[in-house]
Amino acid sequence: MISNMPHIPGTAGQKLARGVGRLLRMMDHAILTEFTPIRGLRVDVISLAPGGDIWIVECKSSRTDFSCDRKWHGYLEWCDRYFWAVDSAFPQELLPVEHGLILADAHGAEILRMPPETRLAGARRSRITRSFARAAAIRLQAGLDPQAFSGAVF
Amino acid sequence: MISNMPHIPGTAGQKLARGVGRLLRMMDHAILTEFTPIRGLRVDVISLAPGGDIWIVECKSSRTDFSCDRKWHGYLEWCDRYFWAVDSAFPQELLPVEHGLILADAHGAEILRMPPETRLAGARRSRITRSFARAAAIRLQAGLDPQAFSGAVF
Repeated sequence: MISNMPHIPGTAGQKLARGVGRLLRMMDHAILTEFTPIRGLRVDVISLAPGGDIWIVECKSSRTDFSCDRKWHGYLEWCDRYFWAVDSAFPQELLPVEHGLILADAHGAEILRMPPETRLAGARRSRITRSFARAAAIRLQAGLDPQAFSGAVF
Repeated sequence: MISNMPHIPGTAGQKLARGVGRLLRMMDHAILTEFTPIRGLRVDVISLAPGGDIWIVECKSSRTDFSCDRKWHGYLEWCDRYFWAVDSAFPQELLPVEHGLILADAHGAEILRMPPETRLAGARRSRITRSFARAAAIRLQAGLDPQAFSGAVF
C-alpha cells in the first residue's frame, strides 16, 4: 500500500484522475498524479508517452473547482499538450477551446478534443522527465520499503 | 501491494538490493530495481541522482552468482558509475577494482570504493532517463490501480 496515494480515490477530482490514468495507460502513456513540475505548481495528471511527449491533464469536478483555479496558466509551459478532464455534468462551455478535452469518470475516460501541440524545448523536457522519473521511483520505493524513508535504516 | 515486487525481498540478491536502495535513498538518489535499459539486459539496481547522474549496482550474493554472470559488461555503457554490491562473506578479490564496491545486507549498505565516472552521452542519458521514468510510473500505477492493466477498464 502506498499510504499517501489511496487505492480508492477519495475526492471527485481524484476519481476523474483515476479514469484519466486508465485511458492514458491504454494509450501506452506512463502517468503520475499530483506531480509538482516546479515549486508552487501541482498538476493533477502528467503523462509520458513512449516517444517522450508530455501531456498534462487538469481534472475539474465542478464550475467552482474551475473558477477558483488561479494556477492553470502556469501548467501550459510544462507540457506538449494540455487537457481538461471533466465529468458529463460539467458545463464544458466554460473551458478554453484551445485546450484538449477529456470526458472522464472514476472508471475510464475518452478524448473529446485533441489540442494542438506546443513542443517543449529540449532542456525543459530533460528537466521535467528527470523530475518525473525521480518522483515516480521515490513513491514506488516508499510503497515497497517504507523503512527506507524512516531515517533510521542502519 | 505491488505483486511482482514483494515487500519482503525473497532472494539473497533482492535482500542486497533492498539495502542498497536504502543507502541510495539516503543519498537522495531515486532507485528502481530489476530495470531493463535495453532488451536482454536487466540490472539489479539503477539510480537517478538529483542532478541526473545514473548509477548501476549489480548485487552478487556468492562466488557462483558472480562467475555465472555473462552480461555485466553490457551494463557499463548505461551508467555514469558502476558498482558491485556484496555481503561481508563475499570474496571481494574476485571483483574488478576499476568498479565501485558496496557492502550491503538487507537493512542497509555502505560504499567501500567509489568508481571513476564515465559520463553518458546526452542522447543515451535522455533515452535511459525516459525509460526509467516510464518504468517507475507504470509500476506505481500497477500498484495503485491494478484495474488500469486489466484490459477491461471501460
